[in-house]
Formats: sequence, C-alpha cells, structure tokens
Amino acid sequence: MEIEKAVEAMRKPLQLWRRDFHQYAEAGFMEMRTASIVASTLEALGYTVFAGEEVMKKEARMGVPDQSVLEAHERWALENGADAKWLSKVTDGMTGVVGMLDTGKSGPVVAFRVDMDALEIQEAMTDDHIPFTEGFSSVVANRMHACGHDGHTAIGLGLASLLMQNKDALNGVFKLIFQPAEEGTRGAKSMTEAGIVDDVDYFIATHLGTGVKAREFVAGNAGFLATTKMDVMFTGKAAHAGAEPNEGKNALMAASSAVLGLYGIPRHADGASRINVGVLEAGTGRNVIPSGALLKIETRGETSAINQYVREQAVAVLKGAAAMYQTEVDIRVVGEALSSEPSRELVDIVAKAAAQSPYLDHVVNYDDQSAGSEDATYFMERVKEKGGLATYVIVGTTLAAGHHNEKFDYEEDVLPTGVDVLFRTAVALVRESK
Amino acid sequence: MEIEKAVEAMRKPLQLWRRDFHQYAEAGFMEMRTASIVASTLEALGYTVFAGEEVMKKEARMGVPDQSVLEAHERWALENGADAKWLSKVTDGMTGVVGMLDTGKSGPVVAFRVDMDALEIQEAMTDDHIPFTEGFSSVVANRMHACGHDGHTAIGLGLASLLMQNKDALNGVFKLIFQPAEEGTRGAKSMTEAGIVDDVDYFIATHLGTGVKAREFVAGNAGFLATTKMDVMFTGKAAHAGAEPNEGKNALMAASSAVLGLYGIPRHADGASRINVGVLEAGTGRNVIPSGALLKIETRGETSAINQYVREQAVAVLKGAAAMYQTEVDIRVVGEALSSEPSRELVDIVAKAAAQSPYLDHVVNYDDQSAGSEDATYFMERVKEKGGLATYVIVGTTLAAGHHNEKFDYEEDVLPTGVDVLFRTAVALVRESK
Amino acid sequence: MEIEKAVEAMRKPLQLWRRDFHQYAEAGFMEMRTASIVASTLEALGYTVFAGEEVMKKEARMGVPDQSVLEAHERWALENGADAKWLSKVTDGMTGVVGMLDTGKSGPVVAFRVDMDALEIQEAMTDDHIPFTEGFSSVVANRMHACGHDGHTAIGLGLASLLMQNKDALNGVFKLIFQPAEEGTRGAKSMTEAGIVDDVDYFIATHLGTGVKAREFVAGNAGFLATTKMDVMFTGKAAHAGAEPNEGKNALMAASSAVLGLYGIPRHADGASRINVGVLEAGTGRNVIPSGALLKIETRGETSAINQYVREQAVAVLKGAAAMYQTEVDIRVVGEALSSEPSRELVDIVAKAAAQSPYLDHVVNYDDQSAGSEDATYFMERVKEKGGLATYVIVGTTLAAGHHNEKFDYEEDVLPTGVDVLFRTAVALVRESK
Amino acid sequence: MEIEKAVEAMRKPLQLWRRDFHQYAEAGFMEMRTASIVASTLEALGYTVFAGEEVMKKEARMGVPDQSVLEAHERWALENGADAKWLSKVTDGMTGVVGMLDTGKSGPVVAFRVDMDALEIQEAMTDDHIPFTEGFSSVVANRMHACGHDGHTAIGLGLASLLMQNKDALNGVFKLIFQPAEEGTRGAKSMTEAGIVDDVDYFIATHLGTGVKAREFVAGNAGFLATTKMDVMFTGKAAHAGAEPNEGKNALMAASSAVLGLYGIPRHADGASRINVGVLEAGTGRNVIPSGALLKIETRGETSAINQYVREQAVAVLKGAAAMYQTEVDIRVVGEALSSEPSRELVDIVAKAAAQSPYLDHVVNYDDQSAGSEDATYFMERVKEKGGLATYVIVGTTLAAGHHNEKFDYEEDVLPTGVDVLFRTAVALVRESK
Repeated sequence: MEIEKAVEAMRKPLQLWRRDFHQYAEAGFMEMRTASIVASTLEALGYTVFAGEEVMKKEARMGVPDQSVLEAHERWALENGADAKWLSKVTDGMTGVVGMLDTGKSGPVVAFRVDMDALEIQEAMTDDHIPFTEGFSSVVANRMHACGHDGHTAIGLGLASLLMQNKDALNGVFKLIFQPAEEGTRGAKSMTEAGIVDDVDYFIATHLGTGVKAREFVAGNAGFLATTKMDVMFTGKAAHAGAEPNEGKNALMAASSAVLGLYGIPRHADGASRINVGVLEAGTGRNVIPSGALLKIETRGETSAINQYVREQAVAVLKGAAAMYQTEVDIRVVGEALSSEPSRELVDIVAKAAAQSPYLDHVVNYDDQSAGSEDATYFMERVKEKGGLATYVIVGTTLAAGHHNEKFDYEEDVLPTGVDVLFRTAVALVRESK
Repeated sequence: MEIEKAVEAMRKPLQLWRRDFHQYAEAGFMEMRTASIVASTLEALGYTVFAGEEVMKKEARMGVPDQSVLEAHERWALENGADAKWLSKVTDGMTGVVGMLDTGKSGPVVAFRVDMDALEIQEAMTDDHIPFTEGFSSVVANRMHACGHDGHTAIGLGLASLLMQNKDALNGVFKLIFQPAEEGTRGAKSMTEAGIVDDVDYFIATHLGTGVKAREFVAGNAGFLATTKMDVMFTGKAAHAGAEPNEGKNALMAASSAVLGLYGIPRHADGASRINVGVLEAGTGRNVIPSGALLKIETRGETSAINQYVREQAVAVLKGAAAMYQTEVDIRVVGEALSSEPSRELVDIVAKAAAQSPYLDHVVNYDDQSAGSEDATYFMERVKEKGGLATYVIVGTTLAAGHHNEKFDYEEDVLPTGVDVLFRTAVALVRESK
Repeated sequence: MEIEKAVEAMRKPLQLWRRDFHQYAEAGFMEMRTASIVASTLEALGYTVFAGEEVMKKEARMGVPDQSVLEAHERWALENGADAKWLSKVTDGMTGVVGMLDTGKSGPVVAFRVDMDALEIQEAMTDDHIPFTEGFSSVVANRMHACGHDGHTAIGLGLASLLMQNKDALNGVFKLIFQPAEEGTRGAKSMTEAGIVDDVDYFIATHLGTGVKAREFVAGNAGFLATTKMDVMFTGKAAHAGAEPNEGKNALMAASSAVLGLYGIPRHADGASRINVGVLEAGTGRNVIPSGALLKIETRGETSAINQYVREQAVAVLKGAAAMYQTEVDIRVVGEALSSEPSRELVDIVAKAAAQSPYLDHVVNYDDQSAGSEDATYFMERVKEKGGLATYVIVGTTLAAGHHNEKFDYEEDVLPTGVDVLFRTAVALVRESK
Repeated sequence: MEIEKAVEAMRKPLQLWRRDFHQYAEAGFMEMRTASIVASTLEALGYTVFAGEEVMKKEARMGVPDQSVLEAHERWALENGADAKWLSKVTDGMTGVVGMLDTGKSGPVVAFRVDMDALEIQEAMTDDHIPFTEGFSSVVANRMHACGHDGHTAIGLGLASLLMQNKDALNGVFKLIFQPAEEGTRGAKSMTEAGIVDDVDYFIATHLGTGVKAREFVAGNAGFLATTKMDVMFTGKAAHAGAEPNEGKNALMAASSAVLGLYGIPRHADGASRINVGVLEAGTGRNVIPSGALLKIETRGETSAINQYVREQAVAVLKGAAAMYQTEVDIRVVGEALSSEPSRELVDIVAKAAAQSPYLDHVVNYDDQSAGSEDATYFMERVKEKGGLATYVIVGTTLAAGHHNEKFDYEEDVLPTGVDVLFRTAVALVRESK
C-alpha cells in the first residue's frame, strides 16, 4: 500500500520527464541534453553521479557520429535546455551516466539499466498522434523517440527517487545506469568495458512495449539474437565506360558479387542465423565505371558463436569480392550485441516481486520469442561472467503503432508500472540476500 | 578577306552570347531562357523561326524531367531574362528552335546543328577558372556549361548573322537547328522525328574541343558509338531482416544479380560493344530487406546493330534477374543515339572549304578515334536515308580541363573560327550544287 | 524367455540373408533380385504376397533409372540368383513387396517398413573391412550396402518368420512392407499412393545405426527434414567462343547465376531450412560456349511447409536465371520426403515393449537430433491422416565407419536385436488393442 | 613443268602417308608413332634429323598428359607400327621432330612448319564419311584427325622429298619442323624456346582448309587471337548439406562466382578480347557441399597485350572468388599462343611464287578474318625478333564438314597443291636472297 502511494506520487514527474525527453529527442552518442539533465537530477536527489569517461571506454564505442556533428549538437544542446555543468562531462560522444546510491549497509550491488537515445525518424504530425496533439512531439527534424527510450529514462529517474526515499530501509548499493546509443547496438559495450558492472550482483535491464500487453510483465526475456553491424566501403577506380572500360576498377561489381556471396553464407547447424545488406549506394554517373560502393550490412545469430561464424564468413566474402575486382575494401564495425540468457534464479525473484504489483494482471517468467537484438546483453554476459545474476524485463503497454514507426506511442501508465515493479524487485533482492 | 573581316566583326557578339548562356546554364529540356533568346535573336535577324511543337515530336523525347521541375524552371527563366514572347513556345520540355533562311533562289537545303544544354555539375569557383574570375560563371547551383554547348549556341547565332548578311550572294535554303538535351542523347530523336531534316541536302553538326588542338579542324568525325541509356527500377517487398527474412522480396539481390549478368553480356564478333551500370542505389535501412533498387545503365555498340544486340541482352538479363527474386522491374529508355558514318563526299567539300580559313593551320579529313556517343547521329542517318549527305565536324581549341570537368573552359578564339569555317562551307555547298 | 529363444534361432538365417543381400547390392528401383527373393521367402513362410504394381503407383515414383538400365539389370538379376517367378513381377522399376499375415481374428492392422536399396558407392576392399575379409563384399562395381538396408531387409524377413510362428497367439493383420529406393527419398511416395497403409492402425519404420550406440534403442525418432530433390537442366546454344561469342546462349552462366541465387534463398523465420547444389556439370570444350548445364539440387525444411517455401523460391531462381541468359530450363523432381512427428502414444507402447528386450540396455523415448531426411515420412503422415499412429525407431549398433562411407559396417548382433524389439512391439500392440 | 611432274609423282605417297597418319590418330604430345615414322622417313631421305629433347624445351610444354597415359601410349605405338629406333627419342611427351637439309652452299635458312596431332573426337562411322568407307578411319576410340594435321604431316614429308631431289639446284639450309600439340596451343612454345628457329631467315607455317576454297591460297594469314588456356581447380571442404552446412567450404559457389566474374572482365579499348569458361565440373553427390570444382577456361586478345590484360584480370577474379568462399585455387596454364602479323615482304614473295602454281586459280595476299588462335605465332614472333621474316599460309580445299567435326574431311588434291606451292616458295626464297 505504501509503495503504491509513493509510486502514484511519481506519476506526474514521470510524465513531465518523459514528455521533455520526447520533445528534445537526441540520437545515439548525442544524448547530451538528456544525459546532462539526468545527471543533474540524480545529483539533486543525492546520488553520487559518474558520467562520460568515468563510465565509458572511449575506444569501445561503435558507430560514433563525426566530430563536427557532435560539436554542432553540443551547441544545440546548450541552447535547448541542457544542464551546462553536466553537459561538459557528456560531450564528445561520451554520454553515459551512472548514479550510485550506497546505503552504507552491507548488501548486494543491484544495477538497473535504461537507455536514452532516439531514432532518425521524422515524427508524425497528425491528429491521431498524441505527442503531436498534446504538444510534446519532437522539435528536431528527423529525430524521434519511436522506441520508448524516453519512457525508460523517466522510469530510471522515478526509480532513483523511490530508492532514495527508502534509503534507510534498504541496504547494499544501487546503480542506475543510463546508457547511450542502444539503437544500432553501439553503446553498451563501452560502458561494460569501463567496468561499471564488474561488481554487480543483480542486473536488470528494462524495456517497455515490444508486443507485451498492458498490465502484463515479462520477468526474463530471452531470444535476443547476437548481431554485428558493419559499414563496408569498396573503393576502385573510375574510368569512362565508353572510352577506356579496361582502365576502371569496378567497385559496384565487387559490391554486387559480395551481396550475392553474403546472402549465400551457409546456414548454421546449431541454430538460426541472419544476414542482410540493407543499403547499397554506388557510382556517380551513368557513363562512369563506379569507383565507390557503400554497403550497410548486419549479421545475426541465435548465439554469439553463430553470429561470430556469420561475421567471419562475411568478412571473407567481402575481402574476396574486393580482390576479384582489384578494389580495396574497408570494413567498419558500427554496432554489436551478444545473445544472453536471463539467469533463471533472478527471473524467479523478479517474477515473484512483480506478482505483488497492483499495476499488473499477468506475469510471464520466461519468453524467448524475440527476433531482435539488444546490447544490454553485454552487461548481462559480463555480470554472469563475474558471478552475478542478470535478466531483461519487459513492461507491457498498448502501442499506438509498432516500434520504429512514425506514429509509435504508448500509454503513460507504463511509467508508474515500471517504477513499481523495479522498486519491488529492489526490495526483494535486498531481502533475498540477507 | 571579306569573310575574315565579317567574322572578326562578330567576335564581340559571339563572346557576349557565349558568356550570357554560360552564366545562365540550363540542363536538357529546360533550355527555356536560352531557346527564347535564340528564337528572338533569329527573328530579329530576319529568320523565319519555328520552335517547340513545330520542331519536336513530343513523345519521341527521352529522359524528360518531371512536370513540376519544368514548371518551376519556367518561372525561373522568366525572372532571369528569358524572352517572354518566345518563352511560351518553348516551355514544357519542348525547347528546340529552328531558324530558316530561304534565299528565294533555287539551291540546296543546308542545315547546321548546334546544341544548347548544360550539365548537372557544380562549376568551380577558383582563381584558376576564367569564367569565375571574369564574372560569367554559372549563377545556377549544380548547373554548368562544361561541354561547350554555350559556345555552340553562340556559333549558331554568329553563323546566322553572316548568312543573313550575305543572303543575296547565296541561294537555296539554310536551316539553323538549335537542339535541346544532347547530354544523355535525349533530344535529337524528337527533332528528327518531327521531320525537320527530311528535306535537307547537306547536314553539318558541330562540336568544339574534344581533344582537337587549337587551329585544327576535323571535317568528318566518325567513331561515335551507338548507345542506349536506361533507368531501371526493381521493386520487391520490405521485411524485417531479423524477424521475418522469408517475407521479403529482395530488390537488391535482383539488382546485384543483374549487375553481374549485364557486365557478362558476350562480346560481339562484329565490333566493339560496351555496357555500364554507372549508378546503383538500393535499400532504406540496415535491418530491412531492400524493397527498391535503382540502376542507371548504358549500352553502346560500334554500330547501331551491335548496340541493339547489347540492349536486347540487357533487357533479358534485367527481366530474368527480377524473376529470380520475385520482384518487378521497370525499364525506361532515357536516352539513345545511333552510330553514323560521315558522307565522304561532303567531308571532302567541307575539308576543302576549311583549308581556306585563316583561323586554321591543319585540317583532318576523317577521324574515327572517338569512343563517345552523340545523338546528332539521328539527324545524320535520317538525312542519308533521304538521299542527302551528312557530316560531323570538330573545331579544335585548347581546353583548361577535360569535358565534363568542373574547370572545363576553352579559348574564345574557337567561336570566330567556328563561324568562319561553317560560313565558308555554306558558300562552298552553294557553289558546289550550281 | 521363449521370445529370446525363438530370436536366437533366427540369428544364423538373419546373417545369411544379410550377407547375401550385401553381396548382391542393388540400387534404388533395381532391387529386382532382392525383391524376388524377399517375395519368394515370404510366400514360402505362408504370407500372402503383393508386389510391383499391386503395391506401387507407377507415376508417383521419382528418379527412376532409364529403361535400358532397368532392362540390363533384369538380365543381371536373372543370372545372379533372382527368383525367376517373382522377378517378372518386380521388373521395370516396380520393386516393392508387401507380405500380409491375416490372423483371421479381429484386431489392429500393424505395419512394419524396411527398405532394400543399396548406394552407388564402390565398396572398400581392404583388410580392415569385414565384408571383404569374410567374403561377402559387393560383387557389383560401384554398388554397396553402405547404409544398412541389407540388415533392414534381413530383419524384415526374420520378423516375418517369428510372426508366422506365433500366428495363433496373435490377432489382427500384419503387413511387412519392403520398400525400394529410400536413398534419394524416391520410393515411399509410390507405395503410399498405392494405398497400402490406408487401413493401418500402427505403423513402424525401422533403421539401424545412425549414431545410436549398441544395446540402445530409440522408440520415436523425429527431426527428419522435409526435402525435395531436383535435377535441373539448362539448355542454351553452343557457339565458338572466339569467332562468334554473341551467337551463344550460355547455359553455364545461367547455372552459375542460379547457384548463387539458390544459396541466397532467405532463411525462414519458422525454423531450419537447407539448400544445396551438390553437382554441377556444364560444357563440352574449352573454346565452346557451354550449351548445357546439369545441376543436382536439394531443398530441406524443418517442416514440410518450410521445405515447400524453399522449393518455390528455388523454382523462381532457376526460371529467372534461365531467362537472364535466354536459355531453357527443365526442372525434374527426383525425390521428396516430408517431415513427420512420431505419435507419442505409439512411442510409449514401443518404448515399454523395448524395455523388455534382453538385447537392450537403454531405451530413448523421443529424439529429434536428426538432420537427415527419410521418405518413410510419407507412410507416417498418411497413417496419421487416416487416424492411425506411426513412429520411426532406431536400433543402435557399433559402426565401423559412418553411413555412406566405403567402409561402413555394423555388428550383426543388431539383426536379432531388431527382430526381438519389433516382435515384442507387435505383441504389445495386439494386447494394447484388446 | 618439271616441278609439276615431280609433284605429281608424290601424289600417291602423299595419300599413303596421310591415310596412315589418319588411321593411327594420336593426340598432342602423344604423336609417338607419327613422329617416329616422320623421323625415320626424313632420315631415309638423307636429312639430318633431330628429335625430342634436341628440339623441345621440356618445361616449356603446356598441358602435357599424365605420365601413366604417356607410358601406356608408348606401348600402343610400339604395337601399332612405330619405328622402334626413333620411338625411343620421342617418348615422354617429347614428340617434336626437325629435319635439316644443308645444301652446303651459302644461302638463307628457310623453315617450314607442319603439325602432327589429332583431336579427342570419335570419328564418324557412316557411309557418307570417306575415311570410313575407304577404310582408313581412325582405329583409336575418341581420337580423330579432324583438323587436317594428317595432311600437314604428309605435305611436310612430300616437301622434304622434293627439296632433297633438288638439293643441287638449291642453296642455303632448309628446316622442316614437325610440331606436336598444336591443338590447345600447347607445343610450339617448347620448340621455340629450344631455339630451333633462332637462325631462321624465312619461316612459313602451313594450314589447309579453314574456309578457303579449293584452288585458292592465302599467302599471309593474320588475325590470330593471342590466347591463354587455363585449367582451374577450386578445392574446398565437403560436408553433409543437411547436418552441418556450416562445416563445408563450397568450391562450387567459388566457381560460380568466378564464372560470373570472368565473363564480366571489362572490354578493352584497344581491341577485341574474349573470355570463355568452356567446362565446369563440380561436386560428388546431391547432399554433399561440393569440395571440388574444375574449370577449363580460355582468354583471347586481338593483341598479345590485350590477351595478357584479360589473363591478369582472370587470375584476380579466380583468386578473389576462392578467397570469398575460403577455398584454395590452383591455376594451371595448359596452352598459350600469341598474336602475330605476317611479314609483308615475305607475303609478297610467297604470293608471287604461288601465282605460278598450276594447282591454284586464285591467290590472296593478306587476310585477317580469322578469330581462332595458333601457336605457330610463337615461331613467327621469335623469327621476327631475330630479324627474319615469317608468314602463315593457307591452302584451300573443299571440306566435307567443318574443322573439329566428326565428319571432317578434305579433298586429297590439297596435298600435292600444298607441296607444289611450298616448293615453289622455297625456290623463290633461294633466288630472292641471291
């Protein structure tokens, strides 16, 4: 009863946070405004706050935007409400934030992960889209929170508030991890390699929606495919196609041969694999042998090993295709995620805690239906390697349109629901380990 | 001596025309300002002027820009110096102009062709580029006269002046043809099919530069490859590459297979052939099966028959590749040119006339070195079919940079040289046929 | 105890049968000698015997050898010990045999399937290969029982003997099905479509080996992939590659494009799929454009629906590739099998019966590890459709080398083991249905 | 008149030689019987005879059959009429023979080349095929003189006879070169590199037929395409296509990708090029990932430089394709020929001599229509490099069917014709250089 009351008191702040983040949508590694507000809010709540290089290993990031883009966005953030003090710590594509609450009493280290980045989508401006009609749709062209990370960030702050309010009743240490660049699976690795979960006993990543109904909850979501995202550039030599065709080195032929080779990578006996060339752009003019060809590809595997297999085959295909046509090839990994199984022991604890929540009607322990990818798996695998337990939970809600759709939206009830379940889980974990 | 004097008197107007056209560069089928000024100038000189639908068969044009683009350009032309009266006749992608001078005396019909269109190139704005330093570089972004058609148009007007000045000394009929959209070989066919050269006895198309040195002249340029330009669109079905790869119809796989098939079209025993896929653009996102793929291709052949062979093979490849991956394919011809041999008899007459020019040191009768394409070949083949003679001449000049280069430029001496040689040719042809 | 004694009495005849069949190995649809001996033996035992057109639908066979090959083999069979009377019923690629024992008492119809065909493999003639050292290796060049079907046939005859010996103690009807051409999954469909299992209540197909250890038994083997085997012939037009390359229609280019397209068939979201081009033979001479190309391909799917998906994609790829290069393509289905789940109820009965066998130490109820294909699935699916129960059992044994290896061999203990378990199963089924 | 008489006296021996060689057709590097008879005949005529290692550089041969094949053929030759003494010098794939006649008087070194090898074709045994009806068709299965080399060898011996008969009237040195393995352009290089034409002033290679009519003669045949023949083997790793597709390394995918890449080698601006994959054989069984793939390919070029370009592109394609699929590739050059222009000065001498022949109605000086290849070009280029003159002549005849056809045959009149023209040429050359 008391928890419910405290959660209800957060309902309004949760909505305000969510709507603010939604309105100022920022893409991966550019969540400068968001991160600075998160850090400042955590600090105000009494958390010890770490950010930027303290919580990310710079060279482990993938798919970071160009420096000029980052710098322009920093100026934008400053002009659009960023917290100036914290902004300086989260520039330069180093936008991760961690808030730590040490109760001073012995107990487990419990970590919660939320993510903060938006997508490169132009938000719908139509009368059937609530963020538009209620005036909080994205003010940034071609940027939109179309996957719910605005809500995740709000839930993280709401949970932080509740934990701090109940500090005396808790023990151990709580870490609230605000991750950048989950889209494209680009950011988690850098936080993992900075060591921020190396001491964690219980790790819980959270997502809303994904097809789970309102008032339902999944305590252990599995089925994430390991994945690698690569940008591939073939470089040959241009030549006039009529006058000197033999002088060219045809990057498009290399790319086309690579495309067929990539899709032809053999199936793996041990489980599902995927390969896709989502984008190919080549050539400049009709009468010129194409000297450049860019491919955006991704590999996936039911396990990290299968993904690794596909990735290695892909690299061989790409290098061989380049050699066939005497071109050069540059292969850049711009995103990566692992597969990871939730720890059944932790799943049971979370499920039991969730069952107490007045915001839920139905709790699913374990679900492996997903066919997407998530880089929270980096945290999960690291925690399990170090002897801790990890899971990935999903808070259900009714969606106006699917994830990554220009009309994506969810019911804001999901925000107190998330805070409630995660707070109950924190309490349960503390008790469990006594 | 008198000719030289008259030509020298044109030197300044030639420069003014050329620089004006250069500054207001217009792409193919959008030469509205240029054509309206040409028409108005010819009219002022005393020519009977035909334009638009009078000289072009609408449905025989290829690669015409979208209607909205044409309309926007019409507004631009009006605001930028077009002749309002004539503009109305050359809108809507119907920008061809023909000026006719009938001496009233029996004699041959002699036609000269020049072309008027610019390229989609951003002109250099550097201190080593004379059009920039002398203030007449293109005012239009991404449009540039980088192939000398500004000079061709000026030569056409200069020749028109001289012919009219000497009307009494001449006999027969003169036609000055100002063709749109030579780039991409898109415009000549429509003028040919309108019948404008059906009564022509002697036809001479002119180009400047192309590697011929200053003070040199080629009286019969052969070696143009027949060509077909095609835009090809494969349309499949998008699907999430991780969740439902079997639901997609992969347009990129079709396109890649087509690319390899196209380059694999067998050589022809009868002579040189060419095939190129200059541009390929496919896909929207890394994790989506590409549902669309656009190819810009061209075929060529040493003869029209060989080009036709390559074109037919290409269509089979494209349709088959579409079928392989259960996609649709749309093939659009956006340009075409023939091969054509100059008439040796006419070449000799032109060469003899050119040998009299004080602007030349060296005359080449016949050259078949070219490996490019030209749609003046449509006029040439039609004239020869109807019993006339045709040739293609080149007036040499020193180039600052190659054709289609952002720093392309030539010496303006080539303008009076061109007028001089063509006028001497006109005189010779009239005498010849007496 | 009594069963064991009766089984032990069969040990010698089982060995003699097996070794005889092994020595006179016959490929699919050519098991004329084997089938005639089987039929004659069953008849001698007192069975009502059906063969050839009585038990096979001619046009439902797949991958039948040429008539001339069948005829030559018939002569060979006659000269090598075939039963002349029965031979005449099993010529012409109609080599199936069914022995029926009707107890005259009401009861279930129980069917057992064994297969009879050998492989096109040259048997090893080395001192570590028992069939060679003990003098019963194949006398036919390039034909070898390298998958144990010689043993299956022997087990079938041994079981027939035991059932007949115990006729009075049994009730219902027993059908012993001797199937041709299981290799390449070519024969079962024709027997199924002849209706021979339409009245069957319990159906049990048997295999030995396949990795199951000696003294182990699998009562319900699942995991067979549905499959389609196709022979594909591309026909183009030959031409001298130097003198007239443009005159050819290149069947090898079509085939090569098809190969890449086939391997590129998208994975299916619902489960495992497979595609293979096992053989490609094209062309006649180095300087001739290849006018013919033969591909031997197979598709597979975790379910029949997935296999159907792959097959449909494959057909599209093949037809499209043919069209790309203006060749013809002929696609012939030469083998096919379904996926099929064993009936759990029957699996339990069989497992319980097997647990009584003194020849076994360990019984596995259900195993879905297989990644091969079996056309016994046609019988299984038909029986289940008609309301019966079906399973596929495996009798373990130690193998000298893997299936389809030139040194494949097994311990002959597996023969009485198989007879024992199948006989106990028959007894159990009769009791079950009382 | 005297020449004609002497030539007519050779008519019968020419026929006998030709028919004997035809009957005992031997493939390239296996002309052991033929070469031994040639050597023994030359010796009997009084020539100094060199053979085997004296006239061939062993390691410069290409496409030599396996040792076991050579040895088996040696036994066959001995049993089928080879000259035992000379056979021992022309075993082991070293079947070249040179007969030298030194007049002892100063004068030019004049060389004539003929070739001796048959093709791997099964000769027709039908009533419309004269070699069959007249009883001299090939006694060897799958070996046939279907390109006229039997006649060339006979002409060589006939010419040898005439030269020797007229030794006193001649001066200088005559070399009669009997070359092995012209088919596949495999043998000439090894004789050239042995230096046998390094001192030659005039070199004349001879062919009959090739479309030239009876009683016609070409004194300077040009237009041979330079060529390289390669056998290419891709080696991967076999694996069961159903159970472990990821374990294979697919040689057929590599080969298929290579095929498309090879045909896609860009045209050359400087002249005609060719590429062909005449044969592809891959794989063992339908359900096995193919671990091996053999390609027989050839490149050609209007010039040796263009052929070299195509060859280099091909090697890059092959190596790249192997790398794409993680397979190994072995590329073996099994034949090669150059392009070569006949020396115009020599052509004129030959044409003038031929014009005197009573066996001819028409002499063509220069013809460049051919699109085939010939390794006599090695001799020609070497002779010209060393300062001599070289040409390639064709003696016309009516063909029953085209070259390399199973019914190929020619009129035996061509034999005395060839001897007559070549002898007149020898006389003319001796006079010329006086």
